[in-house]
Amino acid sequence: MENFSFYIPTTVHFGKGQIANLSASIKQFGGSKVLLAYGGGSVKKNGIYDAVVAELKKVSIAFVDCDGIKPNPPVEDVNRGIKIYKENACDFILAVGGGSTIDACKAMAAGVCYNGDVMDLMAGGKGEIKAAAPLASVLTMAGTGSELDMGGVITAGEDHKKHTIMHPLLYPKFSILDPTYTFSVPEIHSMAGCFDALNHLIECYFIAGSESTDVQNMMNEGLMRSIIKNAPLVLANPQDYNARANIMWASSMALASFQFAIGKKGSNWPMHSMGHELSSLYDMTHGVTLALIAPAYLEFSLQKAPEYTWLFANFARNVFGVIESDDAVAATKGIECLKEFTLKIKMPKNLKDAGVEESKLEYLAAKATEWGNIGALCKIEKEEAFEIFNRAFA
Amino acid sequence: MENFSFYIPTTVHFGKGQIANLSASIKQFGGSKVLLAYGGGSVKKNGIYDAVVAELKKVSIAFVDCDGIKPNPPVEDVNRGIKIYKENACDFILAVGGGSTIDACKAMAAGVCYNGDVMDLMAGGKGEIKAAAPLASVLTMAGTGSELDMGGVITAGEDHKKHTIMHPLLYPKFSILDPTYTFSVPEIHSMAGCFDALNHLIECYFIAGSESTDVQNMMNEGLMRSIIKNAPLVLANPQDYNARANIMWASSMALASFQFAIGKKGSNWPMHSMGHELSSLYDMTHGVTLALIAPAYLEFSLQKAPEYTWLFANFARNVFGVIESDDAVAATKGIECLKEFTLKIKMPKNLKDAGVEESKLEYLAAKATEWGNIGALCKIEKEEAFEIFNRAFA
Repeated sequence: MENFSFYIPTTVHFGKGQIANLSASIKQFGGSKVLLAYGGGSVKKNGIYDAVVAELKKVSIAFVDCDGIKPNPPVEDVNRGIKIYKENACDFILAVGGGSTIDACKAMAAGVCYNGDVMDLMAGGKGEIKAAAPLASVLTMAGTGSELDMGGVITAGEDHKKHTIMHPLLYPKFSILDPTYTFSVPEIHSMAGCFDALNHLIECYFIAGSESTDVQNMMNEGLMRSIIKNAPLVLANPQDYNARANIMWASSMALASFQFAIGKKGSNWPMHSMGHELSSLYDMTHGVTLALIAPAYLEFSLQKAPEYTWLFANFARNVFGVIESDDAVAATKGIECLKEFTLKIKMPKNLKDAGVEESKLEYLAAKATEWGNIGALCKIEKEEAFEIFNRAFA
Repeated sequence: MENFSFYIPTTVHFGKGQIANLSASIKQFGGSKVLLAYGGGSVKKNGIYDAVVAELKKVSIAFVDCDGIKPNPPVEDVNRGIKIYKENACDFILAVGGGSTIDACKAMAAGVCYNGDVMDLMAGGKGEIKAAAPLASVLTMAGTGSELDMGGVITAGEDHKKHTIMHPLLYPKFSILDPTYTFSVPEIHSMAGCFDALNHLIECYFIAGSESTDVQNMMNEGLMRSIIKNAPLVLANPQDYNARANIMWASSMALASFQFAIGKKGSNWPMHSMGHELSSLYDMTHGVTLALIAPAYLEFSLQKAPEYTWLFANFARNVFGVIESDDAVAATKGIECLKEFTLKIKMPKNLKDAGVEESKLEYLAAKATEWGNIGALCKIEKEEAFEIFNRAFA
């Protein structure tokens, strides 16, 4: 097992009615004037905005709105938030929304403490995060795990490139997770969220060095099973509290401090790298892109890294319950089960059906690998990424 | 799923050579004069004490020793530590040891900030923990999980009763987990530690309300499997780094903030309640007492709470790989597998073999239930506890 550090300082208040903890928690972290950030208005329709505002008003915590944070949040929304925060002398950021809103707020939290372009603070940028405003989240959509994680993804530039911002200071101070807040999430976004969470686990599972990390692998297998069991229950009944609760908690656990990747040899999150390019070019929902890429990526990796056939076989047996004594056969069956699962939760069949043009695959492959090899079990550079996009196409 | 909170603020530095983080971490939390607490001297023989002291001296952090913390730590050791801390104007507590040393240090950390008897601060006591000295741990034995948890167990009184102290302020600020530090732990303590960790998971698994907590149950199953796989590897080769690493990390994860019990209906940790009485009366190693009690407790619970047969069957199938379609048959087989596992890791066969007197069973049952019902799936008062002790006897 490789050396690692583990640190998840966020406090989670999970369950029905936990919004009651909001004001005391904001005060605990010194908040007196809150930048209240949210997305396209669904939180106003479903009453969550009103619930948040009622809590703030109860104890006279001032707030100023930053509405309209877009999915795959663009840096322009981040800069707008930074401006509002500073102009209004806020001292706390509250994200009310899903991963996009929380991610944007993380970048704002770092940006308000940095004298320069917030893009400097992205991974590989010239700046350094030395301080951040306190932030917290009220989660309204399960999937990204941003509510219990220190990273975010921001879109910027003419090519809509996705950039990562990450620092321990960007952990939410607290996150309020009320499963009833996800009852009204549209089916496609609920299911895309389920696959996003599942894919975080798949990214963490298939990494070189997994031969030494039984704890991480086996807990991961269990968590994957919980998503595979509960996603169809949410699909069948969007108001199934326990199914929503399990999906919400599984999504948070899936990413928390990358707990399932620690101790392994490291990864550039290849499926995410490829999926991000699809989102950039076609503005596709993040989780949908992952469902399109994952089976093709795994097929390819199994072929190129046969020394990890045992890991694919474990995935098949321990996640999908495949009963098959031959590792190679089991390995292939596991990937088939994953593909079937994507269809069961109504993800598109392939890139073609999702509207992707075949002529763009080479461009996508080049963009996904422009910073180098992204493979976690075998080398994946442009040529390999192109093959994976082709497999996923039709 | 029941409402819950989740909070694990401890930073873990895991792996070979992580002691290099010691001094900077102590300074980060304001430590300049350290109360250095440890047990019976094994840390002096195996070089860990010297490694710790070398790190402190490098950056001129002063320290004063508090040696000889006993297993099942008595309150006298806690009071001695409090006295040394105050007399020497310490500002940080460093536990170098296993669960007993860390637990004692947690009580010291609360005690040095309380104007009165530290026993007031135990669960049910008249005092309240409002502040605590910062503490951290360098772990030398895996099992209890105290290194990533906010609770401790202290022995006090003529009847050697075990008392619990618990507060979020008692989380270690950081814990250094170097698996090589456990290479020299004697076989019996290594295996007792494995069972202690496994039993924490069993306590969390078999709780009413588990029908709604797939995430917790399924992650738990995976973590149990990792212990069952790796404990025999440690037994076969005490210097197997990866096996030691998996056991060390599994033990920490098993207890961390009770992450596998959250969302369920609550438990008084019945196996621990019964095991503690065995430790009190016979000074038996904690993990050994649990190995003696657990199979009998589970057998009894399965009989009295047949509505949870499905949970026992899941345990059999998902933890021990039992292949059996009938739930009732599978359930029984799972408990048999657990019993076999205790023998495989060289735990005593039964209470009689472990030197317990049959004449004491009624007393033990009375003590274990003196504060009321301790059952997590069914009622366990004196009569039921007596039956369980009898089943475990021979």
